[in-house]
Amino acid sequence: MIPEGNCIYAQSGGPTSVINASAAGVIKTARNSGAIPKIYAAAYGVKGLLNHTIYDISEEDPKEIDLLITTPGSIFGTSRYKLKTFEEDESDYKKILDIFKKLNIRFFFFNGGNDSMDTCNKINSYLKNSGYDCNVIGIPKTVDNDLQETDHCPGFGSAAKFISTTITEMRLDADSYDSGLVIIAEIMGRNAGWLTAASALALNEELGPDLVYLPEKTFSIEKFIDDARAVLAKKKNLIIAVSEGIRDDKGQYITDVAGNNKVVDSFGHKQLGGAATILGEILKEKISTRIRTMDIILSQRCAAHWASKTDIEESFMAGKCAVEYALEGKSGYMIGFERANSNPYNCIVKLIDVAHTANREKTVPLDWLTSEGNGVTKPFFDYALPLIQGEPVMPMEKGLPRFARLSKQKVLS
Amino acid sequence: MIPEGNCIYAQSGGPTSVINASAAGVIKTARNSGAIPKIYAAAYGVKGLLNHTIYDISEEDPKEIDLLITTPGSIFGTSRYKLKTFEEDESDYKKILDIFKKLNIRFFFFNGGNDSMDTCNKINSYLKNSGYDCNVIGIPKTVDNDLQETDHCPGFGSAAKFISTTITEMRLDADSYDSGLVIIAEIMGRNAGWLTAASALALNEELGPDLVYLPEKTFSIEKFIDDARAVLAKKKNLIIAVSEGIRDDKGQYITDVAGNNKVVDSFGHKQLGGAATILGEILKEKISTRIRTMDIILSQRCAAHWASKTDIEESFMAGKCAVEYALEGKSGYMIGFERANSNPYNCIVKLIDVAHTANREKTVPLDWLTSEGNGVTKPFFDYALPLIQGEPVMPMEKGLPRFARLSKQKVLS
Repeated sequence: MIPEGNCIYAQSGGPTSVINASAAGVIKTARNSGAIPKIYAAAYGVKGLLNHTIYDISEEDPKEIDLLITTPGSIFGTSRYKLKTFEEDESDYKKILDIFKKLNIRFFFFNGGNDSMDTCNKINSYLKNSGYDCNVIGIPKTVDNDLQETDHCPGFGSAAKFISTTITEMRLDADSYDSGLVIIAEIMGRNAGWLTAASALALNEELGPDLVYLPEKTFSIEKFIDDARAVLAKKKNLIIAVSEGIRDDKGQYITDVAGNNKVVDSFGHKQLGGAATILGEILKEKISTRIRTMDIILSQRCAAHWASKTDIEESFMAGKCAVEYALEGKSGYMIGFERANSNPYNCIVKLIDVAHTANREKTVPLDWLTSEGNGVTKPFFDYALPLIQGEPVMPMEKGLPRFARLSKQKVLS
Repeated sequence: MIPEGNCIYAQSGGPTSVINASAAGVIKTARNSGAIPKIYAAAYGVKGLLNHTIYDISEEDPKEIDLLITTPGSIFGTSRYKLKTFEEDESDYKKILDIFKKLNIRFFFFNGGNDSMDTCNKINSYLKNSGYDCNVIGIPKTVDNDLQETDHCPGFGSAAKFISTTITEMRLDADSYDSGLVIIAEIMGRNAGWLTAASALALNEELGPDLVYLPEKTFSIEKFIDDARAVLAKKKNLIIAVSEGIRDDKGQYITDVAGNNKVVDSFGHKQLGGAATILGEILKEKISTRIRTMDIILSQRCAAHWASKTDIEESFMAGKCAVEYALEGKSGYMIGFERANSNPYNCIVKLIDVAHTANREKTVPLDWLTSEGNGVTKPFFDYALPLIQGEPVMPMEKGLPRFARLSKQKVLS
């Protein structure tokens, strides 16, 4: 059934370079449909639904909406809020239903990762059980690329492109010296190593990292030291890409076990060092060379200036299709991608039962890693390269990116 | 006098995103001149002159030379080697004169910062005193922008553009949350704060950092804590850009004095924390909020993918003019820029006596900083904005930058 009424859009989980392209897809499609009088957005994701902080974005300047396509961050704000099941506690759900009724919201678009799809699933079920007509569609978003049942996720391609480019540039910088340097770059991914694998995407092997460690494969400190020694026996500079989530054979994070991980700062606090810091300390101890650790975790999810055009277009399409499917009466689905063809690359949109994607993680297939476990193989390249293709035209002003500026009128206090 | 013979080019000091654009300017101009039979490059700067590791680049593929224009790093290798005066020790100079004679080198182009201009000056004097005809021209290069007598330095504009864009993107990422976050970004510059100042270049104030600390102004920890508290009283997220070289009222680096700076790692080593780490610890102690430190030091000097077109063109021009002036008989000069007009921006090339630039540093004028000492003012914007203008077309292949690949044939073992 296709209800009549307004729509609301909300962002959830970590921002990406392209999540606002999905927002633009939703807003422009809803406007053009002629079927949705008011377009709302929740401030800071579920938080805005609960505390009723809602923006009316129906009248935002279309030029600024277009600029959303290349604006990083979560323009309406985001949060990580875990809803209890409604059997446990119905109060949150009542607040959401309240605001939906008050604003006659009949279409709900929730843009996030796998935790967010759980939220999406719960809200959809509650609304259905309450007899309130509202079509709920999840829009995928995660640089981690760990959502199930979809070929890949919006956000991944752009982060992958930035990481591989940055590693290549660092390689050229490091190779400017013959004095010997180890660079350890730490990359996002607690359980899934998609982005760390992407660090290996270089036009030729010489420009990529020498060693790549994903959380999918058990990490051995002894093997790591041997690997590093083997590379340094052949060349002066060693570049290592490591996932923040590497674990030992007991499944414990390296950051929790190695060297007791007691980094004590000048005030005597114990600090949790990152994986790169820990590995840097180990190499400093075992191999006498200059070590440099790099944390590109924050940049990789917001470097809109170097996004993948394919990723931007697909992110927009995910938002667009969410509205179209909702207007066709679909509810309780997440937009997914199916690779119709690899060469030339062609992806089509499909609907995935949101209950099937919630709280599940997709990891890199083990046979896409080298037998040594310190690199990736051709199937990963074949999979990932189409996703980083194309350079968007970044709207510029005075030599700097011109990002969207929305007025974000609040409808309720 | 214009000698007849070959030329050699060498790179020195830290790499930049655009130093190879100067290399391209030298190589293409030398080729086109018809007056220089052989074009050589020294491997790893002065080191190559001393150990006689020299590449013959006369026959490199012109397409790859063009790709140098957008390739970061120092393609022929670099080093930081300080020559003694020849009164102290003539042996290095003899080795250099040897190879110059052997290869009939009559034009020497040395591409570097202020230490490198000292080397350039010494070699020029020695060659003149030895009666060996060779025209020596220095080509400026430094992201630090601290060379005297030139309006600005090739390398600065691109680093400035990347830093300001990155800070803006981080701001949009941080502002996606309402949970409160302090980001402290550490930026290059031991004595000159040009790059840290550049972090403030944003299209509107909201997108720039809230607090900016340069080494030019005495840094007070108490004032810093007050500044941070004042910002956080008004907004949830605080972004701080800090130069690695900030110093207290006794002229000591904050990294040397604050909190005794005893960061002890898991192996019991004492480590030198960076300025951002130290300030992060101080804020963690004094203000209860999430702190994130960001080291963008390595990326800022090699992010060719986001270079300034103006900077690339000027870097190329510096290399080109070096060859042209040498062929006119000039020697002992560095190529400099003079701002002929600010609006519209127009810079002309001038010759600067290399002895005047050697070992001297240009810092940011104090009246370009706010009276509070935690921000920059309009004159800095007027100065810096023209330097970050324009986006180069990056040659791409399979979604990744296609950087130059030279064959680098060695002429002598």
